[in-house]
Amino acid sequence: MAANLQVLLDHRPTAKVSPANFRVAETPVQAPGPGQVLVRHKFLSLDPYMRGRLSDAKSYAEPQEVGAVMGGGTVGIVEASNNPRFKAGDAVVGMGGWQRYALSDGRGLNVIDAKAVPIQAYLGPVGMPGVTAWYGLNKVIAPKAGETVVVSAATGAVGSVVGQLAKHAGARAVGIAGGPEKCAYAAQELGYVVCVDHKSPHFAEEMKAALPNGVDGLFENVGGEPFAQAMRRLNNFARVAVCGLIASYEGAPTGLPDMRIFLVKRFKMEGFIVSDHLSLWPEAIGELAGLVGAGRLTWRETIRDGLENAPQALVDLLHGENFGKMLIRID
Amino acid sequence: MAANLQVLLDHRPTAKVSPANFRVAETPVQAPGPGQVLVRHKFLSLDPYMRGRLSDAKSYAEPQEVGAVMGGGTVGIVEASNNPRFKAGDAVVGMGGWQRYALSDGRGLNVIDAKAVPIQAYLGPVGMPGVTAWYGLNKVIAPKAGETVVVSAATGAVGSVVGQLAKHAGARAVGIAGGPEKCAYAAQELGYVVCVDHKSPHFAEEMKAALPNGVDGLFENVGGEPFAQAMRRLNNFARVAVCGLIASYEGAPTGLPDMRIFLVKRFKMEGFIVSDHLSLWPEAIGELAGLVGAGRLTWRETIRDGLENAPQALVDLLHGENFGKMLIRID
Repeated sequence: MAANLQVLLDHRPTAKVSPANFRVAETPVQAPGPGQVLVRHKFLSLDPYMRGRLSDAKSYAEPQEVGAVMGGGTVGIVEASNNPRFKAGDAVVGMGGWQRYALSDGRGLNVIDAKAVPIQAYLGPVGMPGVTAWYGLNKVIAPKAGETVVVSAATGAVGSVVGQLAKHAGARAVGIAGGPEKCAYAAQELGYVVCVDHKSPHFAEEMKAALPNGVDGLFENVGGEPFAQAMRRLNNFARVAVCGLIASYEGAPTGLPDMRIFLVKRFKMEGFIVSDHLSLWPEAIGELAGLVGAGRLTWRETIRDGLENAPQALVDLLHGENFGKMLIRID
Repeated sequence: MAANLQVLLDHRPTAKVSPANFRVAETPVQAPGPGQVLVRHKFLSLDPYMRGRLSDAKSYAEPQEVGAVMGGGTVGIVEASNNPRFKAGDAVVGMGGWQRYALSDGRGLNVIDAKAVPIQAYLGPVGMPGVTAWYGLNKVIAPKAGETVVVSAATGAVGSVVGQLAKHAGARAVGIAGGPEKCAYAAQELGYVVCVDHKSPHFAEEMKAALPNGVDGLFENVGGEPFAQAMRRLNNFARVAVCGLIASYEGAPTGLPDMRIFLVKRFKMEGFIVSDHLSLWPEAIGELAGLVGAGRLTWRETIRDGLENAPQALVDLLHGENFGKMLIRID
């Protein structure tokens, strides 16, 4: 049996996170005790929310403990089980953390069908990012046919699903992404009518041109200038789903300069965290898996090999250097 | 027949509004034409939204036309009618404007029962301010029993109704008002468990003491520091109804420094304008009139005599010098 390779948080970042904030350890793999199950991980999910957990500021999630294995979503195969819900060979998804093996009492661990869709899709379009997209679009924005929905980080793990779901709902999906390559993919593959490059020197003018009928729904993943430009074009009775503010996690805060916009536009802004809505996950996952099975939901992955590269991959994710879902493949 | 005294907008304010922005005119009263009704006004309502209409900046309402009679809510008695919906002697509520008499085609004019409640209450608790309170509390905040609801401008025409409705709903209503006299009235008469004086040098500490369980609902009428202090104590899943921002109408804009609060607290913020929801007015007015009739909804008025004093009364309203509903009694 291989050693358990683990990545631990060594110390908290004071400004920008770097790989030096982490350290790698090898520990013996332990056999499962009574009721426990041992999972060998195949993929680790890297997600923007992880940046928040590196800080000890008060937030919705408990801070990541220093000296402990970094938390994170994983898919893998059950290696040994003393838990009647699992048997060796089962494919499972859970929060196994940044390590090759995880021991679990079974809570939060779910058997998945890795034949219908690739196993790592349970960390993407049929996993947490997909449910995030589903919840924010359907439960916060609730677009009507013909309405315009703007999605920032349009090709990311969440945004790529939002665009396609919005199109299926009959809305006019407008993406915002960084660079021409991502924008071309968004428009050609992800259902966006148009995708605006926030790195363009003409970003404001291009946003104006892309939004002749204004913005009815805004699925906000980024903050900063993309947010400011979308807000300028908000229609009356718009719905803004605040899902993430990645541009502000290591940069300047994103603010709202004048609350009077709430009176002028009579709109709703709502922040949400998908883990608050666990009762809706089965419905969401069912719909998303159905769309994937029918070939109506596509996605893209950036896969890095080796757990020891997870810290750099997280840094790259925070800088938008991923293209689609950022994953670590674990040997 | 008396002359029609009118107050017109003479020129727009560039900074703070003053009586010099208005002028008084006397015109002959015209007899109603076919389908028209002539109303002699008893009371004119003064409301914070009027400040927005004095500006020509884009907003939810059309700007007040320069040189025209100022718009505003009125109650009065039908003097003569060529409209089958009205007869001489009917008490009516409508948007008659800052003038002694108004000719109307009947649109937006409604007969009221001025025996059950005083006629001017149709400009207050059983009129637009009451419906505003009802809508924001019930449709945006929707408090559960035991939750804490904070109301700024707690003794104003809107806030005074919000506090009482929140108490009836089983919530813990906490008011914010300016000065000890208003605060005492809020706590003794309006259903507030406690009212915090935003003019106190210890306002922040007093807000903390008043909110041991945080804020589940915020009915925002003011902006500025009262808003900032209430937002500091927001609970997860709070609902913020943005009804007005009177502190910013002639002062510094009220901003939100960091949107991340939406992620940390997963709350909803919604701006609303009661005239967007006309279909709900009959239900709301029915409930409010029922509460008034049962002695379960009280209010207070600041009455100034004479249309020519309406400009100064509006200025005073914007500076919080009213106590309860600000009205002009028209002779």
